[in-house]
Amino acid sequence: MKKNDPDNLKRPPAEPFRPGCKVWLEKGETNFGDGLYYLLLNVHDYGSIAQAAKRMGMSYRAAWGKIKRAEKSWGVLLVETQVGGDLGGGATLTPEGNKLVKCFGEFREKVERVCQETFDECFGNGP
Amino acid sequence: MKKNDPDNLKRPPAEPFRPGCKVWLEKGETNFGDGLYYLLLNVHDYGSIAQAAKRMGMSYRAAWGKIKRAEKSWGVLLVETQVGGDLGGGATLTPEGNKLVKCFGEFREKVERVCQETFDECFGNGP
Repeated sequence: MKKNDPDNLKRPPAEPFRPGCKVWLEKGETNFGDGLYYLLLNVHDYGSIAQAAKRMGMSYRAAWGKIKRAEKSWGVLLVETQVGGDLGGGATLTPEGNKLVKCFGEFREKVERVCQETFDECFGNGP
Repeated sequence: MKKNDPDNLKRPPAEPFRPGCKVWLEKGETNFGDGLYYLLLNVHDYGSIAQAAKRMGMSYRAAWGKIKRAEKSWGVLLVETQVGGDLGGGATLTPEGNKLVKCFGEFREKVERVCQETFDECFGNGP
């Protein structure tokens, strides 16, 4: 096989294309995407902003700021801190926060599934 | 209405969430996304890498490099230049380039439509 033969480029690719997909929500100046989704999911699971931040390798201050900016931007309370503050009594999601996490999780999962299905339909024989 | 009353944050948001979605293809070290898609679409429509680059506010060199890197990375020829070179005789997409643009366009459009539909299902009553 000659090194510079353009036919070399026409051989079937060793590796197929894989579809990539990302979803988010837009409102005002703050988007709701994977970062805030996983942060709120961890607040829900661990009952604490501090624990959630730790799990994500973020500082407490960064996590708290991320949540507060979203709340302010959207006019919705997402997290409630218990008596003693977050570092004392822990934190829970508000009903609005819970609904947002639940809906976004479903939305994200469905779109990712459809993305793979649509890719298989469109690229059935390989591009 | 008191300025610091947390109830202020609970009023219905003035603006609803809008879904955002982005798709791409992954293979090797180079992704096929909107940038390369529109570049190849413009090569198809204008019959020239130089014209396509101009339409996208890119230099000819940047556009050419983007196409060549993708071809090398995936082992597929995407663009053919005619006698006289691209600046002389123009450029056309190879069958593989045409198929990739066509399939990606369909894939992108379908996923975006489903993204909006899925959002409406999941967030029917607003988060």
